[in-house]
Amino acid sequence: MRATLFDLERTIRQRRQADPSQSYVAKLTAKGRGKIAQKVGEEAVETVIAAMASDRDGAIGESADLLFHLMVLLADLDIALDEVLDELDRREGVSGIAEKASRKAD
Amino acid sequence: MRATLFDLERTIRQRRQADPSQSYVAKLTAKGRGKIAQKVGEEAVETVIAAMASDRDGAIGESADLLFHLMVLLADLDIALDEVLDELDRREGVSGIAEKASRKAD
Amino acid sequence: MRATLFDLERTIRQRRQADPSQSYVAKLTAKGRGKIAQKVGEEAVETVIAAMASDRDGAIGESADLLFHLMVLLADLDIALDEVLDELDRREGVSGIAEKASRKAD
Amino acid sequence: MRATLFDLERTIRQRRQADPSQSYVAKLTAKGRGKIAQKVGEEAVETVIAAMASDRDGAIGESADLLFHLMVLLADLDIALDEVLDELDRREGVSGIAEKASRKAD
Repeated sequence: MRATLFDLERTIRQRRQADPSQSYVAKLTAKGRGKIAQKVGEEAVETVIAAMASDRDGAIGESADLLFHLMVLLADLDIALDEVLDELDRREGVSGIAEKASRKAD
Repeated sequence: MRATLFDLERTIRQRRQADPSQSYVAKLTAKGRGKIAQKVGEEAVETVIAAMASDRDGAIGESADLLFHLMVLLADLDIALDEVLDELDRREGVSGIAEKASRKAD
Repeated sequence: MRATLFDLERTIRQRRQADPSQSYVAKLTAKGRGKIAQKVGEEAVETVIAAMASDRDGAIGESADLLFHLMVLLADLDIALDEVLDELDRREGVSGIAEKASRKAD
Repeated sequence: MRATLFDLERTIRQRRQADPSQSYVAKLTAKGRGKIAQKVGEEAVETVIAAMASDRDGAIGESADLLFHLMVLLADLDIALDEVLDELDRREGVSGIAEKASRKAD
């Protein structure tokens, strides 16, 4: 069965409790929120650069890293993925047709 | 039923075909990949800042915006969410217990 | 005579005291450090995108915006440009020939 | 005498011609513009995080790294620091009193 972000969320929350010498998530978490946030920012920059270079494989890899570190940051803030998806649905009408007309594109 | 990133993916791909005067996704897409990538970078910065300010509601909102614009960028690169999740699973063993031991936390 | 970053530093420190309805620096400063830091991050993203697009004029403009907002952030932290340049000289041997050999390029 | 960004500009342009095994600037430049741009983005993220953490020493160090890598990127684009400062003066009236009234703070 295909892995989802919900699987990732569960896995990350488990690994936070692991031995930092055995787990990247535990090690990064032990370094503090600033280091986790830094990784989110860095992976976003790398995603942007891969996209601008039309590097499709690079963009897949960097997007995966970005999602991963965003999930580590959300776990550190004790925010559930569901809370983010609910907000996304509220803002963007993800499951419906309507779209915020007021939103500016620049 | 709860909206997922797969719903968002489908919705974004539909909106790309819409009239730019009616749809934010179509309008942003018409501005070109640089503008979409810029939004990904900006929303990541805002997520980082909300996290550092311990602004929980802000972090939920900015994470939603980051996920949304990342999905718009992936659509522009014609990358399916599945490709990113497969890569994530390959790297992180999302659905399993194993974790890349080689990964550096800094 | 050519304007320098030291002129900019002096100007920004004066404008911080100005009426927020009259001065962009005063208005941005009144919004708090998070907003100033956000501008630094956003202008860096725009500089990166202009560089990747080989948009020379864009890169000049975005670099100017980045330097400007970095100076506003330094002023907000009460850090003098001299402190940053001294650190730069210490690290990079700016005025000399020597270069840190230990530095990694990736 | 105090080192300036103009000293740094001259030094970086010399080091670009150096042996990549001897010089960080030459090594980074050999990796291509994407890697240089990535460093600019990453150092901006670290500056933002240090500022948000009220880490004054960190902010000095990261600002130095940001300025350094921005200068490496400008050199790679063959943009002179003077061109950026002229644009800055044109936009912000650095050396004068006037300030663009039209500028939005958000």
